[in-house]
Amino acid sequence: MTKVTAQMSVSLDGFYAGPRHEGDGDWLASAEAAAFFRVTRWAISAMAWRERQGFRGGEQSVDSDVIRENFEAAGAYVMGRRMADGGEEPWGEEPPFRAPVFVVTHRPRPTLERKGGTSFTYVTDGVASAVEQAKAVAGGKDVAVAGGGTLVRQVLAAGLLDELELHVVPVVLGTGMRLLDAELGLGEKEGIELTPLRVLHTADVTHVRYAVKGRAPLLLDDRGRNG
Amino acid sequence: MTKVTAQMSVSLDGFYAGPRHEGDGDWLASAEAAAFFRVTRWAISAMAWRERQGFRGGEQSVDSDVIRENFEAAGAYVMGRRMADGGEEPWGEEPPFRAPVFVVTHRPRPTLERKGGTSFTYVTDGVASAVEQAKAVAGGKDVAVAGGGTLVRQVLAAGLLDELELHVVPVVLGTGMRLLDAELGLGEKEGIELTPLRVLHTADVTHVRYAVKGRAPLLLDDRGRNG
Repeated sequence: MTKVTAQMSVSLDGFYAGPRHEGDGDWLASAEAAAFFRVTRWAISAMAWRERQGFRGGEQSVDSDVIRENFEAAGAYVMGRRMADGGEEPWGEEPPFRAPVFVVTHRPRPTLERKGGTSFTYVTDGVASAVEQAKAVAGGKDVAVAGGGTLVRQVLAAGLLDELELHVVPVVLGTGMRLLDAELGLGEKEGIELTPLRVLHTADVTHVRYAVKGRAPLLLDDRGRNG
Repeated sequence: MTKVTAQMSVSLDGFYAGPRHEGDGDWLASAEAAAFFRVTRWAISAMAWRERQGFRGGEQSVDSDVIRENFEAAGAYVMGRRMADGGEEPWGEEPPFRAPVFVVTHRPRPTLERKGGTSFTYVTDGVASAVEQAKAVAGGKDVAVAGGGTLVRQVLAAGLLDELELHVVPVVLGTGMRLLDAELGLGEKEGIELTPLRVLHTADVTHVRYAVKGRAPLLLDDRGRNG
């Protein structure tokens, strides 16, 4: 059974990057990038991540195992347009996905075939369609929502996400782009309930994987007052 | 060596209560309360919490052990005025703290002596003073910042917090009062770095305890681009 999964590195206060960088300035010099590199540092150090990027070195660790496992579990990806655009040049001829990637965008574009099994198909009729197309080719493996945060939030808000894994990095950023924010469109006294599936941790990051149960009312529980 | 500690139950998106309830309406019926009771449900179910409140029942569990340990580690408390006011009636003649509590407030008031070792001393010259006064009587145990969230954030922002334990509850709330927010006053490309000390988890909550290292610049780390 194909699951729809997402994982994201976030600060302790829930940011996956700094305040959004606008305009033509140097992204690498932006506050968005500084925070992004802080919360993804653990991954950049991990052998499994470096191997996928074609980089040498890196550490074999629980963190690396988590990355390897997530790469191997994915039979297809769904990705936001901004992430796909930003990655196109640095990922180069052989991107790290090694599977079909469905990019949610408003701009039609022919499918881009890359080496190593990665292709980018541009989907213009919405998130749910991209998830369906990815499921159809995932070969029984998972559909991984690769990001960015806006897309992960949209998939969660639409009730399409089965599992969410947060890699919680021990830093407080105070500001930036938050994965879980008001755009989820939850009602008053409504929450999205989850069930913890697994917790792994190192000195650099705590990996918490949840199954998403779905929206539910927040029921009053005042046993603390009634004794 | 007396440490200054804080712990708080938060949703996966970092809220410790719903949107702040204003006015004279029924707090128990508010969205603030509905979310507060959701994120503290694990504690209300725990034997160690119920014992301290003089309530019967509850479950013996890892969650209960965490509560017991935190109560026993505290030699004195610092508390915000709103929490102290809200608790005065429900805590009754024998509040659960069994130690001196220093309430940060603008309104002078004589110290309130309660049964079982709890006293409330009203401190009008600021957070740092309240922490100092609590340290002086903690008898080598910890000074626990009892809450609410605003006070915990102030103590963290002031660089006075040694340890922070979050009890992360598997629910997304989307809105409400957030423990870690922009009021921390962090600069651009600045974070508060922490070190994980302990992770415990049950089906209901993940307890993550951190040592606070302090403010540090976010250094550019672009090994992910340079290979």
